Amino acid sequence: MAIILDGKKTAAKIEEKLAEQVEALEKERGIRPGLAVVLVGEHPASTTYVRMKNKRAAKIGLHFELRKFPTTVTKEELHETIDELNRSDKVHGILVQLPLPAHLDPHEAIDWILPEKDADGLSTLNQGLLYRGKPCLMPCTPKGMIRLLDEYGITIEGKNAVVIGRSELVGRPLAVMLSSRRRNATVTVAHTRTRDLRRITKQAEIVAVAAGRAQMLDATYFAEGVVVLDAGINPIPCKESKTGRRLVGDVDFESVSKIASYITPVPGGVGPMTVCMLLENTVEAARQICGVV
Amino acid sequence: MAIILDGKKTAAKIEEKLAEQVEALEKERGIRPGLAVVLVGEHPASTTYVRMKNKRAAKIGLHFELRKFPTTVTKEELHETIDELNRSDKVHGILVQLPLPAHLDPHEAIDWILPEKDADGLSTLNQGLLYRGKPCLMPCTPKGMIRLLDEYGITIEGKNAVVIGRSELVGRPLAVMLSSRRRNATVTVAHTRTRDLRRITKQAEIVAVAAGRAQMLDATYFAEGVVVLDAGINPIPCKESKTGRRLVGDVDFESVSKIASYITPVPGGVGPMTVCMLLENTVEAARQICGVV
Repeated sequence: MAIILDGKKTAAKIEEKLAEQVEALEKERGIRPGLAVVLVGEHPASTTYVRMKNKRAAKIGLHFELRKFPTTVTKEELHETIDELNRSDKVHGILVQLPLPAHLDPHEAIDWILPEKDADGLSTLNQGLLYRGKPCLMPCTPKGMIRLLDEYGITIEGKNAVVIGRSELVGRPLAVMLSSRRRNATVTVAHTRTRDLRRITKQAEIVAVAAGRAQMLDATYFAEGVVVLDAGINPIPCKESKTGRRLVGDVDFESVSKIASYITPVPGGVGPMTVCMLLENTVEAARQICGVV
Repeated sequence: MAIILDGKKTAAKIEEKLAEQVEALEKERGIRPGLAVVLVGEHPASTTYVRMKNKRAAKIGLHFELRKFPTTVTKEELHETIDELNRSDKVHGILVQLPLPAHLDPHEAIDWILPEKDADGLSTLNQGLLYRGKPCLMPCTPKGMIRLLDEYGITIEGKNAVVIGRSELVGRPLAVMLSSRRRNATVTVAHTRTRDLRRITKQAEIVAVAAGRAQMLDATYFAEGVVVLDAGINPIPCKESKTGRRLVGDVDFESVSKIASYITPVPGGVGPMTVCMLLENTVEAARQICGVV
């Protein structure tokens, strides 16, 4: 049986340390790191995510601001608010909660955030810096996935890794990070158009999945002893649950956990790490902006 | 025996068409696309490259400007010149010839160029856009490698490709392009820290090498029928040559050309395509800047 890569516990541990750092920053430097979230509409999942971010930001002592808009908000109004947050001394990290309504271009909104306050690490400039191996604010989900490996002492160097999915939120940046000169994995990016995926994943020592398809990979896709990171969050019907559904990953946890050496559960694996890295990025941004080394 | 992917002939063909486009732009729109090169020092290879760029730009009818500096030039002087070129109506593409002397940061210089005039496609913003799958000026070498496949009618879609090397000039952008939603190859990035490279390249249908090590891969590394793109340019000693040396690629052409289906020679393969794509980027930039669809 695989060892569970417990994102919830790991995130809690990291957030404890972040809380100490936030306290020290305030005491010693008079800096209180602040996070601002821009939320458009009432998308239930988005509302839940934002509430969670607020709660956990507050818990480690961050200043938190929420700017809520109806779905009828114009691009100009959104930019005005981001401008104001860009200028604010109280705010060091800004994120625009996705998805946005169809009339708003998410990239345009994200690129309106000052790169040094881009807490999600999703702006074109931060992605360009990441890609070039330069210091930057990194996208939270892939950063959290790698941190989870680090916290469990799992070596990346020299390993054969497969990343399934090529989104700019997860797959692409994760592949860049894993194959960076700091990490030195040999990385294959697979996707919906990959032929004979099983042959490819079977050869991998680390498989990271961000495909967005419920339980698409069972044990037949993996070699004994593989390390599996699952960024999928898919609702499936479930009679036993009060809501009538439950969340599963892109991997069939039950069968794969029998042959993997390490595996993330869903929920409680990658998800909590994502929020944790958002908080870490905000503290990091505050340090950078205020010139604290 | 492999079919030779003749970069020289292909580049000449594309440049003929570019010459027609340049003529039409001037006749119909009064626009003459212009390329400016900033050269620091007297590095012999750089001088040769710049001369070649000048010659071929002139041949297709581009306006060409060379700004030469001694190695003692300061960052501020360099930026001033780039500022001036950024503002110039005659110049649509600008490149800083690399390498620069140690006291100048190449990224800082490149990022000083307006992104819409970044003819080499190497600025942080253009790399970020490429990575995100957005329209942009693309780095010339990987763009030229893919164009060579296109010109010979070689399918990329669904293929297993291996890119050896992770430089931001060639390997990284090539991997992103090949695995993009437009191209849909399954791409593995291998590098100096990759274990058992032979096992990985043996499984590939397309192998692109940008490792910078003379003839590091012989026929034992490849499967029968593989397509090989070699971006290496390495001088090795050669008694028969007047200069006492000759240029070879990262691949042992003699043995590999016996089992490959297609292969680029060195010289005359990827090299000429790189300059050709620089010219194409300049024409493209001129169109964009002047609003010609």
